[in-house]
Amino acid sequence: MLNILENYKGIHEIKHMSLKQQKQLAGEIREFLIEKVSKTGGHLASSLGVVELTLSLFNVLDLDKDKLIWDVGHQAYVHKLLTGRKEKFDTLRQFGGMSGFPKSSESIYDFFETGHSSTSLSAALGMAIARDLKKEKYEVAAVIGDGALTGGMALEALNDAGYRKTKLIIVLNDNQMSIGKNVGGVSKYLNKIRIDPKYNKFKLEVENTLKRIPNIGKGMAKYLEKVKNGIKQMVVPGMFFEDIGIKYLGLIDGHNLKELTEVLSKAKNIEGPVIIHVITKKGKGYEFAEKNPGKFHGVGPFDCGSGEVYSNSCVTYSKAFGDEMVQLGKHYNNLVAITAAMRDGTGLNEFSKVFPNRFFDVGIAEQHAVTMAAGMAKSGLKPVFAVYSTFLQRAYDQILHDVCLQKLPVILAVDRAGIVGQDGETHQGVFDLSFLTHMPNIVVVSPKSTAELKNMLRWSVEQKYPIAIRYPRGGDNMKVTMEALNDFTLGKWEILHKEGNIALIAQGKMVQHALLAGQKLKELGINVTVINACFIKPIDEELIKVLVQEGFNIVTIEDNVVRGGLGSYILEYINTLNKNVKVINLGFRDEFIPHGKPDLLYKLYGLDVEGIVKSVLKIV
Amino acid sequence: MLNILENYKGIHEIKHMSLKQQKQLAGEIREFLIEKVSKTGGHLASSLGVVELTLSLFNVLDLDKDKLIWDVGHQAYVHKLLTGRKEKFDTLRQFGGMSGFPKSSESIYDFFETGHSSTSLSAALGMAIARDLKKEKYEVAAVIGDGALTGGMALEALNDAGYRKTKLIIVLNDNQMSIGKNVGGVSKYLNKIRIDPKYNKFKLEVENTLKRIPNIGKGMAKYLEKVKNGIKQMVVPGMFFEDIGIKYLGLIDGHNLKELTEVLSKAKNIEGPVIIHVITKKGKGYEFAEKNPGKFHGVGPFDCGSGEVYSNSCVTYSKAFGDEMVQLGKHYNNLVAITAAMRDGTGLNEFSKVFPNRFFDVGIAEQHAVTMAAGMAKSGLKPVFAVYSTFLQRAYDQILHDVCLQKLPVILAVDRAGIVGQDGETHQGVFDLSFLTHMPNIVVVSPKSTAELKNMLRWSVEQKYPIAIRYPRGGDNMKVTMEALNDFTLGKWEILHKEGNIALIAQGKMVQHALLAGQKLKELGINVTVINACFIKPIDEELIKVLVQEGFNIVTIEDNVVRGGLGSYILEYINTLNKNVKVINLGFRDEFIPHGKPDLLYKLYGLDVEGIVKSVLKIV
Repeated sequence: MLNILENYKGIHEIKHMSLKQQKQLAGEIREFLIEKVSKTGGHLASSLGVVELTLSLFNVLDLDKDKLIWDVGHQAYVHKLLTGRKEKFDTLRQFGGMSGFPKSSESIYDFFETGHSSTSLSAALGMAIARDLKKEKYEVAAVIGDGALTGGMALEALNDAGYRKTKLIIVLNDNQMSIGKNVGGVSKYLNKIRIDPKYNKFKLEVENTLKRIPNIGKGMAKYLEKVKNGIKQMVVPGMFFEDIGIKYLGLIDGHNLKELTEVLSKAKNIEGPVIIHVITKKGKGYEFAEKNPGKFHGVGPFDCGSGEVYSNSCVTYSKAFGDEMVQLGKHYNNLVAITAAMRDGTGLNEFSKVFPNRFFDVGIAEQHAVTMAAGMAKSGLKPVFAVYSTFLQRAYDQILHDVCLQKLPVILAVDRAGIVGQDGETHQGVFDLSFLTHMPNIVVVSPKSTAELKNMLRWSVEQKYPIAIRYPRGGDNMKVTMEALNDFTLGKWEILHKEGNIALIAQGKMVQHALLAGQKLKELGINVTVINACFIKPIDEELIKVLVQEGFNIVTIEDNVVRGGLGSYILEYINTLNKNVKVINLGFRDEFIPHGKPDLLYKLYGLDVEGIVKSVLKIV
Repeated sequence: MLNILENYKGIHEIKHMSLKQQKQLAGEIREFLIEKVSKTGGHLASSLGVVELTLSLFNVLDLDKDKLIWDVGHQAYVHKLLTGRKEKFDTLRQFGGMSGFPKSSESIYDFFETGHSSTSLSAALGMAIARDLKKEKYEVAAVIGDGALTGGMALEALNDAGYRKTKLIIVLNDNQMSIGKNVGGVSKYLNKIRIDPKYNKFKLEVENTLKRIPNIGKGMAKYLEKVKNGIKQMVVPGMFFEDIGIKYLGLIDGHNLKELTEVLSKAKNIEGPVIIHVITKKGKGYEFAEKNPGKFHGVGPFDCGSGEVYSNSCVTYSKAFGDEMVQLGKHYNNLVAITAAMRDGTGLNEFSKVFPNRFFDVGIAEQHAVTMAAGMAKSGLKPVFAVYSTFLQRAYDQILHDVCLQKLPVILAVDRAGIVGQDGETHQGVFDLSFLTHMPNIVVVSPKSTAELKNMLRWSVEQKYPIAIRYPRGGDNMKVTMEALNDFTLGKWEILHKEGNIALIAQGKMVQHALLAGQKLKELGINVTVINACFIKPIDEELIKVLVQEGFNIVTIEDNVVRGGLGSYILEYINTLNKNVKVINLGFRDEFIPHGKPDLLYKLYGLDVEGIVKSVLKIV
């Protein structure tokens, strides 16, 4: 019986609840989230892990003035639920519905928007500095996971925060996980702290023992003072944080509401930056999620009772990629795979089992991943870095400066390119064609099907230059048969169909849309040519020249913003030919693309079959 | 008398030299570098600081198989000198001459190219992993400064290296400086280590003292064991590195050849990653550089005897920016300035003195800088992040995800945009127009003169959205008078001259070139219109429409790669107008631009006055 939550009116109620009531509320929140997310899908496990933490933050902070930043933001469902969005959970991650991440447009309590990892400390420090300069009085708190803490920019922010002495509350939400198991030296360090939680008792005992040593001279007393400080260093965990200037409070049981509230209250009274090391369990309170937090990190709709996820049996691009990597791994013993904390998502699970020595999870560290791949390539390995398009943005400089400049044969497997759907604005992969194609020396390819992805990957490992293979989320949704291209020549496109005097030049998933649009147009009596622009860079200048000479008008179709993308690239080239050609560039206009089902978004932006037909009719 | 260096044949000689000879060689190297760099200009102070370190690395490593990576690479002059490039120093940083950074094309001993900070650890770890997988035997060593160590990607790499146990030698070249004084918590931590160098002696004394305590029972003995370990933590510096899994050796005097060589030899025998903490003095051995290492970091030609740098009295864009910031700072008390370890270079020196509380040097941490600015803007400040174009590449994702998505009024003062000249490929700022203009919500502007920069900055602080102001290195080199635009309307260009039926649309420094080209063309009887595209985004669609309707042909001129840049942006728009217009896009072709004087490079890429005239003649 959902008693408290049912009658819950808003955040101001929380402070007036008894501990018992809050504990009941925590249970009700979990029940609510499990039930709702089982229908919509979403980021369940992280949110279940921070129920008590969120309540205690709401106990201690006054969110009408204090600022609370959730790193990444997928753990913010509890926050959303408690800040007036209970009714919105049925629309979670659906077009026009509630976002899965903090959004200022939804609530004044979502003060800063997040989505990518490791941004919260920088943002929070900026706010805290602003507060002090403006002589205002409020708290700024950031909640960051131990996974996100390994991201370079979070470490940059810690380094800066420790130096400045600006008052700032950092909650380290330590669940020993990124999306999967966390890795890295910092994780090891945190673990070292975790395994010795009895430091307080121990410290006291040692001090008492030392007091009992009789007859100490002056020199000895001095030494013992130092010894005591040494003991403090040994037994007080988190000494590194203190060394760089951040007060450390820990370890705190992240599911003990009373303790959490007390420690957070204490933290408010500390001048300067403070880090509160909280131990939580990802998936807490839902057996299946506790056992398999990775599966319930970002989960599709599932059966509450059994924890069974309703399966989508289609072969995804990620799966095709992963399968081919295993095959290639057998053939090339210098092939290695790198992931930035996305082993499962990128399809590398099997590879990591078959070739554990050739699999590298570097943590949430895309910059390091790319340059490490550069070093590997320079020393004779064939590194493949599998990464989501949106997260590759973090490594822009490393691709340009460390890979392209030296023309190193690094393969970037750019997954989740184009529309990713429900994760929305912060996760759509609609910029990579623009930011990759202006880099010298790189080759960018894009398969029209999962089968073609495999062939492309096989071709790529034989080449001697940087290659980005970009492919979408999900799998094939074939409504028209397409033979996978198997034989690739640098910069040569595939003509799927040649007719009429209009050429649809499409890439990736858009090839299927173009073929279907061609069929519709035929029904309307218009014959078109359809081309698979499997090479985004270099483009097929020879073929374009022929088309232009033959008097074709051209429609480019891409799963990317128009500005600077494939169509723009083709246009730049056509412009140098000095011929009168009509060109239409289809792609996303200059704005952030909201969350929603991919097909719906394609329709909205004119990239579905109907939209393409409509655009073609304009130049007939 | 340069005895040893004069007859020096190659790196294999070094191992056979006596300590005395090496010391003499060190002196000769310093003399050589000071004399040569005084003529060409270059990165002197860093290189003077690592003379002994380089020699000791050459003593210990076998560079015919071992790999040595210099982070950033501007300290590699000694390495260059000793690896067969003595004669090339007269051509340092000149077109066709020796690069100021490691370049594989120059020497097999420049195994990995660097230029941007903090990349070496990732690259080196990648190489070490490759070595082990291929079952090869060689050392991989990276030399990284304490400044570069604060860059997020270096911290990501440390985190990963500590976890992997891969054998790897990291030399921490600690001179307490980035280009200027180093900042941040890690710096504070290193300093804590530095100020207690007598740890060995102390540790021994405490242990002896403890031994003298009589009659200890079993419990007590157990405690004392723990106490001793505690002491170890207290007195052994670098415990954090050990905690994350990296063996720590330090402190080492970086100018003591014997000690350095011994420690490096020892490091070779350590399994797993090891960090050697070496204390060096930037500018060592040249009085003026020791006193003023910042000035002699990257220095122009100077007088050896007096240390006087031959002055270039022109007002640079950086100076104009800095002056205006001070003026604006007086008017807006919420204006703040941020730099990533580039206070002097970006012209913020004066601002930092006048408004110390509103000046933020975050260390080499561009990612953090941008998102911190986002947090500041969200909380009511007017943050201006001054940064070189090439280094802004590091923060691509943060601009897009943390600033543009929320449309926060952050000002990016993008200095050194376009050709920077002698620093070459890794430092040219020729990509920013491409990577910024495909980001939604941002406004990109570019002044045609230093005076216009000031006006633009003044205008920018009043706007409510993200703005990037991009401007070149150096100052005005006016050969034709240009009135600075003072009144800006979003997306409105300035018509400098209207005539004929060809419009030259230029931005920034290229406006001057366009005007001069217009004069030359007039002499040839061709009248052209010249337009200052002060707004790169949004472009002036209205004006373009008028030009197109009036039958103008268009030449775009930009200090950026053509792919995805301003000209491409204009072309995309013109294409939607469905008119027959000739467009020529001038800019850099799709390759990395080598080092050399800006004017020479403009000529080479057809962006000088002659080049523009030639291009225009093609469409007459």
